[in-house]
Amino acid sequence: MILKPLADRVIVKQVAAEETTKSGIILSSAAQEKPQVFEVIEVGPGGLVDGNEVKMVVKKGDRVITGKYSGTEVKIDGEEMTIVRQSDILAVVE
Amino acid sequence: MILKPLADRVIVKQVAAEETTKSGIILSSAAQEKPQVFEVIEVGPGGLVDGNEVKMVVKKGDRVITGKYSGTEVKIDGEEMTIVRQSDILAVVE
Amino acid sequence: MILKPLADRVIVKQVAAEETTKSGIILSSAAQEKPQVFEVIEVGPGGLVDGNEVKMVVKKGDRVITGKYSGTEVKIDGEEMTIVRQSDILAVVE
Amino acid sequence: MILKPLADRVIVKQVAAEETTKSGIILSSAAQEKPQVFEVIEVGPGGLVDGNEVKMVVKKGDRVITGKYSGTEVKIDGEEMTIVRQSDILAVVE
Amino acid sequence: MILKPLADRVIVKQVAAEETTKSGIILSSAAQEKPQVFEVIEVGPGGLVDGNEVKMVVKKGDRVITGKYSGTEVKIDGEEMTIVRQSDILAVVE
Amino acid sequence: MILKPLADRVIVKQVAAEETTKSGIILSSAAQEKPQVFEVIEVGPGGLVDGNEVKMVVKKGDRVITGKYSGTEVKIDGEEMTIVRQSDILAVVE
Amino acid sequence: MILKPLADRVIVKQVAAEETTKSGIILSSAAQEKPQVFEVIEVGPGGLVDGNEVKMVVKKGDRVITGKYSGTEVKIDGEEMTIVRQSDILAVVE
Repeated sequence: MILKPLADRVIVKQVAAEETTKSGIILSSAAQEKPQVFEVIEVGPGGLVDGNEVKMVVKKGDRVITGKYSGTEVKIDGEEMTIVRQSDILAVVE
Repeated sequence: MILKPLADRVIVKQVAAEETTKSGIILSSAAQEKPQVFEVIEVGPGGLVDGNEVKMVVKKGDRVITGKYSGTEVKIDGEEMTIVRQSDILAVVE
Repeated sequence: MILKPLADRVIVKQVAAEETTKSGIILSSAAQEKPQVFEVIEVGPGGLVDGNEVKMVVKKGDRVITGKYSGTEVKIDGEEMTIVRQSDILAVVE
Repeated sequence: MILKPLADRVIVKQVAAEETTKSGIILSSAAQEKPQVFEVIEVGPGGLVDGNEVKMVVKKGDRVITGKYSGTEVKIDGEEMTIVRQSDILAVVE
Repeated sequence: MILKPLADRVIVKQVAAEETTKSGIILSSAAQEKPQVFEVIEVGPGGLVDGNEVKMVVKKGDRVITGKYSGTEVKIDGEEMTIVRQSDILAVVE
Repeated sequence: MILKPLADRVIVKQVAAEETTKSGIILSSAAQEKPQVFEVIEVGPGGLVDGNEVKMVVKKGDRVITGKYSGTEVKIDGEEMTIVRQSDILAVVE
Repeated sequence: MILKPLADRVIVKQVAAEETTKSGIILSSAAQEKPQVFEVIEVGPGGLVDGNEVKMVVKKGDRVITGKYSGTEVKIDGEEMTIVRQSDILAVVE
């Protein structure tokens, strides 16, 4: 089953903690906070959003970091995912 | 009896829980929360909304996911429906 | 006596409850809440509103649904009416 | 003595209650609330307001209805007047 | 010593109460409130303000009325003055 | 050591109280409040700010007045300075 | 491992306190507050942000000052970094 995000939205899935820790990126502020590196699962088409042209620059498989309280959580086929706007994505991990 | 939404509005009807669960999509955060997969019942014409051109991309029969607190609830012929803006629709289920 | 709304405003009058119930539309959330189907009494000319061109699409006699807390209530010749912006009208009943 | 409103502003003066009641228009919500039918006393020139071109459509002598809490009250030569933006005027009484 | 206001700002000085009372204009709401008729002392050059072209229409010596809580108070050479944006000026007294 | 402000920002330094008092300008509202005449130390390049073209009109050495709570305080080489946007500067002292 | 910021975002790393003190810049308001001079580590590509063209003017290695509460903190390879928008950067230290 597939979710196709609309407009400038992106579906992301949290990367497992051990894997994130290994990568060396942790969103700080409290040690017990869950790391927030996400893998991009689906990317919307972009286009006109609130009258502004948005070009999508992230792509499936990218590892990204988002703001802490961004997006709407959705459970798909038992897996927790988050739907964010591309503008909530701060950086791509390379 | 038919409701014709104005501008960028879309009328959606919640998909029965058992059917949603089978599809594997649940808006998480609390297990007892009602799933929020909706079927699109009617689609507005789009056009200029707050000065921005909006093109409608969802269509009757689409299964969609919306933000948790989006829209106005309306009861039509005994059935609960919700009127949302297309920009409140996060993704289409395929 | 006639009220001519300015800009994108529309004067609407609540349709009697029994008539609304018959039509099958009730704005839900609480059973005792008054239904909010309105008849359009007067329509403003549209035009530039906050710098955006607004074209009026509702017309006298239309039955419409508005957001719950929209508009300013006015009593005209003993009848309660409400003045709303066209953008507060969610859908037209057909 | 004359006050010349700037931009899209309009000076209005409340119409006496008995006269308003006769006209049949009362802003409802509480019976003891003062009716809010106003006579237009002076009209600003319109023009660019916050970057948007505003054309004045009300004129001296018009009877109008405004939002309940709109405008700034001013006492001129002993008479209470209110200075509102034209966009605060909901409708013209004909 | 002279203060030159920037952009769409205007420096105004309150007109003495007796003089204001004589002119017949009092900003009402409470009798003990200070009248708020001001004399224009200096006028900014106008021009682009937040991306919108602003043309100055008030001039030195004009008597004006402003919104009650507009502007920043400044004491210059012992005299209290107020710096307001032209858009805070409601009307010119003629 | 030099700080180069970005965009429409300006670095200003408070003028010593005795010197300000002599100049006759005091931001009133409370006698014990510090006067807020500032000397312009560095001026940003202006240009596009939030999509609007900003032209810098203040220059090094200007004496200016700003809104009371504008800007970010910075200590540079032991001296307290404030970084403000040009739009927070109300007037230039001549 | 590298983080590539999106749009107008910039990754910055706090400069060690002793080094900052030596440079003579301290964000004041409380002595015990951490100084906030940052080194620019990575710079986003700029481009269209909310419909406005943004050109990046800071570059890797620049020393900059940001607003006190700007940005999202991230820990990368054990080092605390902050992701800010370029518009949150007040000035460049030269």
